[in-house]
Amino acid sequence: MNIPGVAMQPSARLAGIAHARQLDAFLLTHLPTIRHLSGYFFNFETGPSPFHLLPACLVAVTGGEACLIAADTETGQLSAVYPGIMTRLYTSYVCERPLDFARQFQVQLQETINAFGLSKARLGIEPASLPVLIRRELEGFFPGLEMVDVTAEVARLRLIKAPEEIEFIRKAVHLCDVGQETLLNAARPGVTELELFTSVRAAMEVAAGRRFPLMADFVSGPRTEQAGGGPSGRMIQAEELILSDLTPCLDGYWGDTCHTAVAGSPSSIQSAMFRRVQEALDLGIQAIRPGVRASEIDRLMRDHLAALGTYSHHGGHGLGVTYHEEPRIVPYNDLVLAPNMVVALEPGVYRDGQGVRLEHVTVVTEDGCEVMSRFQHRLSSL
Amino acid sequence: MNIPGVAMQPSARLAGIAHARQLDAFLLTHLPTIRHLSGYFFNFETGPSPFHLLPACLVAVTGGEACLIAADTETGQLSAVYPGIMTRLYTSYVCERPLDFARQFQVQLQETINAFGLSKARLGIEPASLPVLIRRELEGFFPGLEMVDVTAEVARLRLIKAPEEIEFIRKAVHLCDVGQETLLNAARPGVTELELFTSVRAAMEVAAGRRFPLMADFVSGPRTEQAGGGPSGRMIQAEELILSDLTPCLDGYWGDTCHTAVAGSPSSIQSAMFRRVQEALDLGIQAIRPGVRASEIDRLMRDHLAALGTYSHHGGHGLGVTYHEEPRIVPYNDLVLAPNMVVALEPGVYRDGQGVRLEHVTVVTEDGCEVMSRFQHRLSSL
Repeated sequence: MNIPGVAMQPSARLAGIAHARQLDAFLLTHLPTIRHLSGYFFNFETGPSPFHLLPACLVAVTGGEACLIAADTETGQLSAVYPGIMTRLYTSYVCERPLDFARQFQVQLQETINAFGLSKARLGIEPASLPVLIRRELEGFFPGLEMVDVTAEVARLRLIKAPEEIEFIRKAVHLCDVGQETLLNAARPGVTELELFTSVRAAMEVAAGRRFPLMADFVSGPRTEQAGGGPSGRMIQAEELILSDLTPCLDGYWGDTCHTAVAGSPSSIQSAMFRRVQEALDLGIQAIRPGVRASEIDRLMRDHLAALGTYSHHGGHGLGVTYHEEPRIVPYNDLVLAPNMVVALEPGVYRDGQGVRLEHVTVVTEDGCEVMSRFQHRLSSL
Repeated sequence: MNIPGVAMQPSARLAGIAHARQLDAFLLTHLPTIRHLSGYFFNFETGPSPFHLLPACLVAVTGGEACLIAADTETGQLSAVYPGIMTRLYTSYVCERPLDFARQFQVQLQETINAFGLSKARLGIEPASLPVLIRRELEGFFPGLEMVDVTAEVARLRLIKAPEEIEFIRKAVHLCDVGQETLLNAARPGVTELELFTSVRAAMEVAAGRRFPLMADFVSGPRTEQAGGGPSGRMIQAEELILSDLTPCLDGYWGDTCHTAVAGSPSSIQSAMFRRVQEALDLGIQAIRPGVRASEIDRLMRDHLAALGTYSHHGGHGLGVTYHEEPRIVPYNDLVLAPNMVVALEPGVYRDGQGVRLEHVTVVTEDGCEVMSRFQHRLSSL
């Protein structure tokens, strides 16, 4: 099987859509799309910047060149842009004069449209992330532009991962491994969820050598029955469960694993719940191979846990430049798995005041799957 | 002076704009605007959700009611919505059927427009944050809608803070105080920037009882001359400076202070730089009062440091639901300060391989200003 690499130009990766929709070019604004096709990642951790219209957009000409327009405050990210993609910077932060970033962005975009000869083009756009302000100005400047919604088609390009993408995901999953191992070693009664979470995140940051966005469910005791939530000042008691779902974003690619540990020695009920969830996860992993439907994987895990009261969330999901995408491992989904899809599985049981969830990330191979997570789920380090 | 409180209905706070622009209603989509007028805060730390079209929007009828439309995954935030504002939830995450959040959002918005009798209204919008997808569907459903850009006017409403807003900011600034005190006590040679940053953030999180978004410059040694950057694995050496600019967002309001500490005993050069920057900051603070121009504050601080090589960034800025807004303390800005504006000042000196920056947040009073930061800048805890 021939998987296109990330070094392939955006126009080549978009060629099928351009042909099917008869497009002259694309104007792409969804940040995951931009990361996927250009390598450029905007760190969203501190929210929308007061100096940006958009952090970036990507213009790609059918059969031709591509240009990334990015804010000049984000130059640290430009080194990751894939070879062959032009970059233009727009002036975002200034202190010598009033902020003018919206107009500066539009100027760079208009110059790009002109330079690429697209003033009367048929453009593929992502209307959920394209601001009205940009469209209005573009149409004022270029009345001949026609815009076509390509959101669904562009998202589908992400389903099969390129080899380099799998390595990006592997690095993010490795951070999860570091975090879960730290949890297992540090879990003990008498510390708060926040203190324990601090140790876990610190170990992950040391491994990464820097900060990165981290979504996390991190709950203990009765909170585990609710399946999720952020770490609080709650003091962890002896023999309580700690549910830790770590979802870091490293350079724009997400990792995601879940573990449940016990502070001290597990009760027989906890051990039984844990074992049953682990069996469900193993069943799911063993069933992953090309040709299997997503719904079948979901059903195997869900059925195995049905006697304990089934979970109300998905059985799993794809991930990559987003933390939840196809293949969704859910009852309705007839999507057929294929090599180089990435699938996280996360069955759980929540009952009688506590919950257990276990999650691994896998990549579909020619004849099964490889578990990317290296961490070995176990209730206690004792 | 009569400062409108946050409990005042959005329509009352927007009345002046509605009158001047002859608007029947507003459709507001910029997250800081939504936080400002409705109390609703979306935690952006993990980026755009794969289950949202927008996290929320706010519809406010001139002289009438207001309705917040929010994703049903974010119900934890709804308790903060100000009294009298209706809420509608749109279905975002589902696992029983394909995701359909874009359509679900539009349905709730259309029902709100209908319920408020706005099908032929003149609407104030924020086109930099309103997606083309929403506008296109609205115009398809309600051909009589007219949309008017009110971005600048709505942002100006934030200039004078309500008393409750000042308390929100004070709480965020208090987190900065906790962080800087921790830095001062933990700064020592032989730890890495990331380790030190971990202690600082952990203390802030314990004080808050939970996680929160945190922007931070956190650099040591020669990195301080670059004025900013995130914490790295760099080992801090004896007698090196550590520059810590902490900008947390608590419940949607930002705090922001900067400190520079030394790992061990300061050199005479470091002490001189520090003293000079502290003098500049004090000069700025003493000059803040109603009637003074922003540019005058900036000039006082910049002139005081000119002999050491002036800094290339702003002298300060307003903050609130964003971390940089008016009054910008910059050379060109003739804006006149008035009571209940919030002003952060942050002069700095960067030269000969090291940098010092000190920042406090102030609120303009009737006859001067109050420093909201309680932390006392000092180079060393020794």
